[in-house]
Amino acid sequence: MTKSLHSEIVEAEGHLVDSQLLNSIFDRVIGRGGQFEVLEFDIGRDNEAYSKLTLKVSAPTKTSLVEILEALMPLGCHPQPDREATLRQAEKSACVPDDFYSTTNHRTEIKIGERWTEVEEQRMDAVIIVEGDQACCRKLRDVIAGDKVVCGVDGVRVSPEFQERDRLGFAFMMNDVSSERRVEVSVKKIIAIMEEVKSGNGRIAFVAGPVVVHSGGGPHFADLIRRGFVDVLLAGNALAVHDVERALYGTSLGIDLDAGSAVEEGHKNHMRAINVINRAGGIRRAVDQGILNSGVMYEAIRHDVDYVLAGSIRDDGPLSDTVMDLIDAQDQYTNALEGVKLVVMLSTMLHSIGVGNMLPSWVKVVCVDINPAVVTKLADRGSSQTVGIVTDVGLFLHQLRAQLAARPGQS
Amino acid sequence: MTKSLHSEIVEAEGHLVDSQLLNSIFDRVIGRGGQFEVLEFDIGRDNEAYSKLTLKVSAPTKTSLVEILEALMPLGCHPQPDREATLRQAEKSACVPDDFYSTTNHRTEIKIGERWTEVEEQRMDAVIIVEGDQACCRKLRDVIAGDKVVCGVDGVRVSPEFQERDRLGFAFMMNDVSSERRVEVSVKKIIAIMEEVKSGNGRIAFVAGPVVVHSGGGPHFADLIRRGFVDVLLAGNALAVHDVERALYGTSLGIDLDAGSAVEEGHKNHMRAINVINRAGGIRRAVDQGILNSGVMYEAIRHDVDYVLAGSIRDDGPLSDTVMDLIDAQDQYTNALEGVKLVVMLSTMLHSIGVGNMLPSWVKVVCVDINPAVVTKLADRGSSQTVGIVTDVGLFLHQLRAQLAARPGQS
Amino acid sequence: MTKSLHSEIVEAEGHLVDSQLLNSIFDRVIGRGGQFEVLEFDIGRDNEAYSKLTLKVSAPTKTSLVEILEALMPLGCHPQPDREATLRQAEKSACVPDDFYSTTNHRTEIKIGERWTEVEEQRMDAVIIVEGDQACCRKLRDVIAGDKVVCGVDGVRVSPEFQERDRLGFAFMMNDVSSERRVEVSVKKIIAIMEEVKSGNGRIAFVAGPVVVHSGGGPHFADLIRRGFVDVLLAGNALAVHDVERALYGTSLGIDLDAGSAVEEGHKNHMRAINVINRAGGIRRAVDQGILNSGVMYEAIRHDVDYVLAGSIRDDGPLSDTVMDLIDAQDQYTNALEGVKLVVMLSTMLHSIGVGNMLPSWVKVVCVDINPAVVTKLADRGSSQTVGIVTDVGLFLHQLRAQLAARPGQS
Amino acid sequence: MTKSLHSEIVEAEGHLVDSQLLNSIFDRVIGRGGQFEVLEFDIGRDNEAYSKLTLKVSAPTKTSLVEILEALMPLGCHPQPDREATLRQAEKSACVPDDFYSTTNHRTEIKIGERWTEVEEQRMDAVIIVEGDQACCRKLRDVIAGDKVVCGVDGVRVSPEFQERDRLGFAFMMNDVSSERRVEVSVKKIIAIMEEVKSGNGRIAFVAGPVVVHSGGGPHFADLIRRGFVDVLLAGNALAVHDVERALYGTSLGIDLDAGSAVEEGHKNHMRAINVINRAGGIRRAVDQGILNSGVMYEAIRHDVDYVLAGSIRDDGPLSDTVMDLIDAQDQYTNALEGVKLVVMLSTMLHSIGVGNMLPSWVKVVCVDINPAVVTKLADRGSSQTVGIVTDVGLFLHQLRAQLAARPGQS
Repeated sequence: MTKSLHSEIVEAEGHLVDSQLLNSIFDRVIGRGGQFEVLEFDIGRDNEAYSKLTLKVSAPTKTSLVEILEALMPLGCHPQPDREATLRQAEKSACVPDDFYSTTNHRTEIKIGERWTEVEEQRMDAVIIVEGDQACCRKLRDVIAGDKVVCGVDGVRVSPEFQERDRLGFAFMMNDVSSERRVEVSVKKIIAIMEEVKSGNGRIAFVAGPVVVHSGGGPHFADLIRRGFVDVLLAGNALAVHDVERALYGTSLGIDLDAGSAVEEGHKNHMRAINVINRAGGIRRAVDQGILNSGVMYEAIRHDVDYVLAGSIRDDGPLSDTVMDLIDAQDQYTNALEGVKLVVMLSTMLHSIGVGNMLPSWVKVVCVDINPAVVTKLADRGSSQTVGIVTDVGLFLHQLRAQLAARPGQS
Repeated sequence: MTKSLHSEIVEAEGHLVDSQLLNSIFDRVIGRGGQFEVLEFDIGRDNEAYSKLTLKVSAPTKTSLVEILEALMPLGCHPQPDREATLRQAEKSACVPDDFYSTTNHRTEIKIGERWTEVEEQRMDAVIIVEGDQACCRKLRDVIAGDKVVCGVDGVRVSPEFQERDRLGFAFMMNDVSSERRVEVSVKKIIAIMEEVKSGNGRIAFVAGPVVVHSGGGPHFADLIRRGFVDVLLAGNALAVHDVERALYGTSLGIDLDAGSAVEEGHKNHMRAINVINRAGGIRRAVDQGILNSGVMYEAIRHDVDYVLAGSIRDDGPLSDTVMDLIDAQDQYTNALEGVKLVVMLSTMLHSIGVGNMLPSWVKVVCVDINPAVVTKLADRGSSQTVGIVTDVGLFLHQLRAQLAARPGQS
Repeated sequence: MTKSLHSEIVEAEGHLVDSQLLNSIFDRVIGRGGQFEVLEFDIGRDNEAYSKLTLKVSAPTKTSLVEILEALMPLGCHPQPDREATLRQAEKSACVPDDFYSTTNHRTEIKIGERWTEVEEQRMDAVIIVEGDQACCRKLRDVIAGDKVVCGVDGVRVSPEFQERDRLGFAFMMNDVSSERRVEVSVKKIIAIMEEVKSGNGRIAFVAGPVVVHSGGGPHFADLIRRGFVDVLLAGNALAVHDVERALYGTSLGIDLDAGSAVEEGHKNHMRAINVINRAGGIRRAVDQGILNSGVMYEAIRHDVDYVLAGSIRDDGPLSDTVMDLIDAQDQYTNALEGVKLVVMLSTMLHSIGVGNMLPSWVKVVCVDINPAVVTKLADRGSSQTVGIVTDVGLFLHQLRAQLAARPGQS
Repeated sequence: MTKSLHSEIVEAEGHLVDSQLLNSIFDRVIGRGGQFEVLEFDIGRDNEAYSKLTLKVSAPTKTSLVEILEALMPLGCHPQPDREATLRQAEKSACVPDDFYSTTNHRTEIKIGERWTEVEEQRMDAVIIVEGDQACCRKLRDVIAGDKVVCGVDGVRVSPEFQERDRLGFAFMMNDVSSERRVEVSVKKIIAIMEEVKSGNGRIAFVAGPVVVHSGGGPHFADLIRRGFVDVLLAGNALAVHDVERALYGTSLGIDLDAGSAVEEGHKNHMRAINVINRAGGIRRAVDQGILNSGVMYEAIRHDVDYVLAGSIRDDGPLSDTVMDLIDAQDQYTNALEGVKLVVMLSTMLHSIGVGNMLPSWVKVVCVDINPAVVTKLADRGSSQTVGIVTDVGLFLHQLRAQLAARPGQS
């Protein structure tokens, strides 16, 4: 056994067993060449009670000890006794000191002076800037020379979301990603979550790819908007173009959606749709001028949905609504996500990962895609917050609409 | 250019352009090192008219010429002038002469004496046995010493199915396999085909995997049976066990289908279900004794569906109904497929390929799976007869049931 | 809170945290409507030490309590104090009493009289038969009227495999299934495991699908056989036919493997290969007669590999070596697996699941497939024993061969 | 039969059968409700000879006739007799008249006055602008008020690429997308194409996703760069960050690439890598300052590869090299692609589609991905120019490097 000269004591408290934190804590120590000794472990006696762990972590070098401590922080471990956060100035804009603390998406507190302060605008892969007694997440590129940046692990406390063992609400289908599941049941539970979010004045965001239109989900999605379940719509140029193309010409990339037959030269309609909208001065004006009369974007505008279309390298056109400066687009996405409690991701890996990067870990995410690899990839990025459903998006939206309409008191 | 000493003239007639036969004919000649010269090509003037091709095929050796001619036969080319079929005796049971003619699944005629005789029981990968003035396909293993086996290419005429360019019926969705299509439209067309088959007294076979049950499609499929759209059910042990498990305990491999939550120790119910059925003496007796009261197998028995459960190496149990001798199982499948005009394959690559091997090319096939690779694989085996749909099988069956129920005059 | 009138005390000991057993134990109690109270939990102080749990489990009914106890057994929980196993006679062959104990693939002991006896021939989904002071697993279909069958949960003790947190050997890549990994590293570790197994006189089994041949892996796999790393080969008819076809004609299902170009009429070679082998009287005789001179099956026969070809409903031919009676085939597979310590599964879901069902949980499994869904499905069936690798099987075998050849002292 | 009052005569010439153009021409007429009459069809007598078609196309309305004619143009049909191109002025920048001609990626000529002029900067989904006697493609957004835009179908002649039936070069593996192929053979042919392109002074572009690094392909790809086979590298922020992360810390998104074990908190290295590069002032300066000493980006800079990193909504950071204004990024991609004769796309659907949109149809494309759906999607966009290979990218690059090194005269 390697002699471990450097050690520190850390503590963690919560549903450490249920959320598999205990296991992960031990894994990370051993996986990084360290050793641990359980000084105290007080297990919750029943399903409600918290567990409490006091652990001595040792490592052969100071550097590896710091690395282990950093790795344990997202699991809720914080060093004992408490120390103040270390602040260093950014010497140059958009750059930070080497030992900067890189954030997770979990609720984080910083010890400034004698007080623990909650960090605002929590998101992953940011740094923490302290101004006076306030702390907030900031993207690397937004750091300004002179900003006080939290460095190292002292004075940082992370509270991971605990996975509830409640059999209701959200935990129900988180066990694994599978196409061999009954989607009708999942839809029922998603509706329950949607209603809960709305009744608590939370906002619901949808991230939607063009497959929503191709697969015939457009009218069903438009119905969700009319029913008030879509507060935010985050998408790319393609969703809007295909939706507009369908509204104007009845096709989507050359597929006649009602007949199901291919109209191979459909690209022409695609470009025509862009030309029509841009000539009108954008989607909103096209609606105002009576040019665009149906579809997802039409309903989004009519029902004041907060929508942002972010550009991508593959965009044709694009529509004049599409934000091609991605720094701007990321900021608009972030702003639109304020107050959102539930995000439903429909068949777009690109925009879904983009949104996932911006979310704190307490926002629930439902990810729907027919490709299990996409669902797995998204769920892996935040396993305690994401439910994955492998199914046909068009039929999923059809089910969602049908079950919403069938609720008591609906028409 | 290689000197080609050996040559033969072949003819073909039909929708050679539409069915891409013309292109394939040229490809196969060149691809095997031969050369061609178009002696005559009379193109159909309009969409209805046949085209007619007379082609001189040359090759450097006699062997390679024969190889090319063999390769052209499934495309409808037959040598000119007509010669009689060459027959050789099988010297040993289950074995045939080296130059045996290996069948395709297309309609085939054999010239015996002066007459062209249609081959019976057409299927692929068989040999043709001639008895008197009759010819029929026979599996290699069923050949008996002394049987007269068709050898070489003389006196064999194959008529491939022509792909109709009709925009109705079947050709509609054959262009490619994609999950980005509107399933609601496809379902509508499948219903039209089903009704057409039934109105012509044709039979409909379903090949179904256990995902039908997992994905919640069981009750919808049972409804199809009650409505009389399922004449034949070809499946494996797993479909029946999962269906029975659901009927008896409400679970399928440990998933509570109504609650959607996992009951991990579900294997126990799986084995219990087998025990219960086998103790009763099989599924039919379990229905008669009132032990099994619902589900796919229950309805299949109540409505006299011709069902065969074929065994596989991974089967637990199996149920006493499952045919574990596969020679026997293949024969039972083949018999059940007599008179079938449409086969719908639901989420089982294994049994679907098995069935596909048995079908003549004029039986239509619809293949539904959430995995595009499975659909592509099945469609590739008989592209002019198979429509592939990439979607969630549970929701697909739900759609099919809902649209069937919504037809005028239905309840 | 529901009043829980029925309760029992259970105990478990081992790497309960590392193997995520602790979490699963709590989950299963709550998931089945029960409650738990931790009477004692002694956590292992360091990475080597065992943890020990004493838990009071309560449920509203006697039935649900038994259900919970059954569900906890595979996790290593056994009721305290010890009771003797309950034995009941099978009244009828191939049937057992309703409350029979259904086995897992974990090491199991039965208390007969005062002694704990280890169950032999451990496998999942079997029942336990006791004869004298011996106990062994038996498939339902092999139970004979009068056999003494273990029922209920008393006197049964299951020892799940603990997942080692060793960073060497096997645990290395078990975290998740991903195609975005470096296969070269995985191959290196697999070689280390293979060498360890061989140096301990263990046997290695390969389960191989026809993709091994299509993807060009045949010669590499044949090399593994020559090097002595393949003791058992479990496959289907297709692997052998494609391998023989390649050896005789250089094609595999119509693909010329060296030129990479398609020879569409390849089915002919497929059927010819079967005809040639069957005329010779099987593969072994074809080797003896000098008809078959290369390939996987040739090397398997030359190097006394224990091979079994199991039939399936989709088999053409089949080769006379293929076992079409699946009861027989399952028994032959099981016998061949005796003494096997490592199973490598190459691109065949069907046969891999079949083999997986037969293995006790302490046999290591490596599963290689280009389709992540297949790897996930196989890994899910026994997560603590299976490593999944998503990659191209042909290139994987090439790597394996190249790294084996590059070891010191090899040529 | 519908009465068709409106008709026009069109002509096409070339490898109409081999390239399946003939079939497509008839399909499109019928599919759009028209009728055709073959006035003359002169089939090429042998593999080299061109075919020639004169077709009368009829439709019930003038509008549908124009629609059909538009749909036939990409197949090489042009109306007879020749008319001049119709030019209309753009009234507003970024907008064009409703009946604008939307380009394909095929070689196109415009009749201005009496002369046919080849259109420059050919790409799909653009409009054609005429200045004097010159014509060139222009993106909709780059149209300036007053530009003369080609409208309708008169005076436009499209020459689709003919699919060569040569059995060498490129056509070899275009038949279908399959993971069940021998990659070693494909690699050999790709090398032949690469050498041919280089010997003709053509440029080779690679489009690469971060999986290149994750899958261990980085060093192999770097070797390709050193050998001079990479003239252009088009990628996103992620490839560069992961490559730099690997070069600086030996990890890629938390996977230690040499050990294969996960270092879960790898995001930290990811952000650190960005911080280090941005502080240096970008990748090139980091190389100059000796901070970055190995990897793909290092070699790209050392060997003057023309690289462009295009931003996306999911980018962390980004690196200061990443172009976040996508209008700018698209223009830079387009410029870099000048003179490129071969594009190899490695595991990135997003950037590959982006590049595909910019390419004329005579640039060859090889697309490599482990996900068959991605390969299919990319190949579908330009089936006569794209070869798809479903395999592990890391092992593919390893093979490519090994075979390149094994050529005579290489080290």
